Amino acid sequence: MPYPDEFTGFQVNGSDTWTEFHKNEFKPRPFGDYDVDIKIEACGICGSDVHTINGGWGEQKFPLAVGHEIVGKAIRVGPKVTLIKEGQRVGVGAQSWSCLECRQCKNDNETYCMKQLDTYGAVWPETGTVMQGGYSSHVRTHEHWYDPSRSLLVSPMLCAGLTVYSPLKRNGAGPGKKVGIVGLGGLGHLGVMFAKALGAEVWVISRSHAKEEDARKMGADGFLATQDEKWNEPHKMTFDLIVNTANSFEGWDVDAYLSLLDVQAKWVSVGLPDGDGITIKNQTFISNGCFFGSSHLGSRRETLEMLQLAADKGIKTWVEEIPINEKNLSEAIQKQHKSDVRYRFCLTNFEEQFGA
Amino acid sequence: MPYPDEFTGFQVNGSDTWTEFHKNEFKPRPFGDYDVDIKIEACGICGSDVHTINGGWGEQKFPLAVGHEIVGKAIRVGPKVTLIKEGQRVGVGAQSWSCLECRQCKNDNETYCMKQLDTYGAVWPETGTVMQGGYSSHVRTHEHWYDPSRSLLVSPMLCAGLTVYSPLKRNGAGPGKKVGIVGLGGLGHLGVMFAKALGAEVWVISRSHAKEEDARKMGADGFLATQDEKWNEPHKMTFDLIVNTANSFEGWDVDAYLSLLDVQAKWVSVGLPDGDGITIKNQTFISNGCFFGSSHLGSRRETLEMLQLAADKGIKTWVEEIPINEKNLSEAIQKQHKSDVRYRFCLTNFEEQFGA
Repeated sequence: MPYPDEFTGFQVNGSDTWTEFHKNEFKPRPFGDYDVDIKIEACGICGSDVHTINGGWGEQKFPLAVGHEIVGKAIRVGPKVTLIKEGQRVGVGAQSWSCLECRQCKNDNETYCMKQLDTYGAVWPETGTVMQGGYSSHVRTHEHWYDPSRSLLVSPMLCAGLTVYSPLKRNGAGPGKKVGIVGLGGLGHLGVMFAKALGAEVWVISRSHAKEEDARKMGADGFLATQDEKWNEPHKMTFDLIVNTANSFEGWDVDAYLSLLDVQAKWVSVGLPDGDGITIKNQTFISNGCFFGSSHLGSRRETLEMLQLAADKGIKTWVEEIPINEKNLSEAIQKQHKSDVRYRFCLTNFEEQFGA
Repeated sequence: MPYPDEFTGFQVNGSDTWTEFHKNEFKPRPFGDYDVDIKIEACGICGSDVHTINGGWGEQKFPLAVGHEIVGKAIRVGPKVTLIKEGQRVGVGAQSWSCLECRQCKNDNETYCMKQLDTYGAVWPETGTVMQGGYSSHVRTHEHWYDPSRSLLVSPMLCAGLTVYSPLKRNGAGPGKKVGIVGLGGLGHLGVMFAKALGAEVWVISRSHAKEEDARKMGADGFLATQDEKWNEPHKMTFDLIVNTANSFEGWDVDAYLSLLDVQAKWVSVGLPDGDGITIKNQTFISNGCFFGSSHLGSRRETLEMLQLAADKGIKTWVEEIPINEKNLSEAIQKQHKSDVRYRFCLTNFEEQFGA
């Protein structure tokens, strides 16, 4: 029973077998008046995909196809849809539902709606259907969550890009501001390019100097390696904003990091490491009155802004393209787990697996 | 060898005998061109005094006279002083030195100067003198740190008041904003009155309802007791700013607290509890993209603003006056340790101990 009644995807059966992908058919949630189905053409591999299937973020509903950096062509458009036309290429990221009626939704903060649903793993309230992600033939989503993506390779921008763009934009990254990006991976490399495009002075903060040359090519003005002695000393109280994309708290020296911030400046951690977190004291924040926080994706408006900025400035994700199939997924997800990717895997060749 | 060569103060000899005060003479740091000596008339008792002498904040340099909410009369004025006149009543709070030359100092952020010195316990760099606080006959400080206090009972505003006023002012407490004050003690009760005076809607968040009547008298619009079931539910994502004055992390439910904040709103902890702190995960901040931070006292400009606001709006610290002597200090400091004070002890009758 193929499309439109069933979709096909590469699912994982449980966190104990998280490196094994199985091509299964699954039933999507019911098609609504504002829904659009797309035939997927590309999907990025996000760190979230690993945290979800390997148990790092706790229990999940299996079998599950992950993937939430999705680009494809609209092939079915609900009767009330006005934003998307059939045949149009569009993208969808890590969130794909919110109420669109609450104060947050009406205020370009739909990513903070209390009823928001993730693109995969969330349960569709009316039917109990577990939402499936983009390692699949199709995805079905309310029109609000699609954006007019112009190329397959923007797919990593739809989660990784937006996750860094929103805190940069909301916290004033721009001309005259010194911005730090901690960690140069999928999120970090887009963070460097977006912060630069917004006009800021951009410094990468990494463990070693291994990625310094790449960082400079991406536009970084400076590079700090935390393995260097007294690496933070000359930069104390000079950063206006730091976006931390690191995926782990290993070797985290919170005092050294926060010492970089100017008075009342902000540290925004957008990675969501496994584990128990870190211990902080109020004293940690007192010498500069700084702030520590996080940020969740970004709004539709920010997505459109980001894609326009990328188009205007010629920003391109640095991707390694991988034809989607069981073997490649298994290899790629393990490499992603080790952060052995420069700088984002993008799954392609969906037609080979799911037909034209 | 009395004043001006030596001052007299009530000192503690060590953290194992923190409830015992001894009246000793001590030598102040050298008198500088910009210095002013005051004869002390009143001094508030701050939670910091307890944390310092009982070992909660780690090792200190004893013998030590604490006290940093000081009001007195200027009796000696250095040759380059322009801000203070001899005979004038002035006050000084918890900080009494910074370089006045760095970017922070020139930007009304002298409290974040990397060279700042506390009023007591800090070491005067040139001579190694350990600075002594306001449980004393006199204090010697650079003119920048004095403000024209108009009455003895403003003394608690000079630390407790400023510590809450600065984060309220800097983070937008004002008309149309819903502000929370966690903990109704010395800091909290001034926080309620200042937030109200700035025009905000003010809610007190306390463990029980014991202080609700007082809170209402201080001007609170609402009161939440965390012992009530689901106390936070109706207020999720509604607060624009919360200033936490609690002096302990006991029973702290960080998720419940932060759930109160609107998108990207700030939690500012100004208490400095003993102990190891709390554990946080990035996930803690993600549902509303909120920020957690601290704040350190406030600038000279903010002190003047605060005192003017207090004068304009008739704000008065709720104090219990206590004549300064060994016995009263011992009792009061132990009560302060148990937060058994409504709402600030203020030491008076200095002439009885130190002469006219």
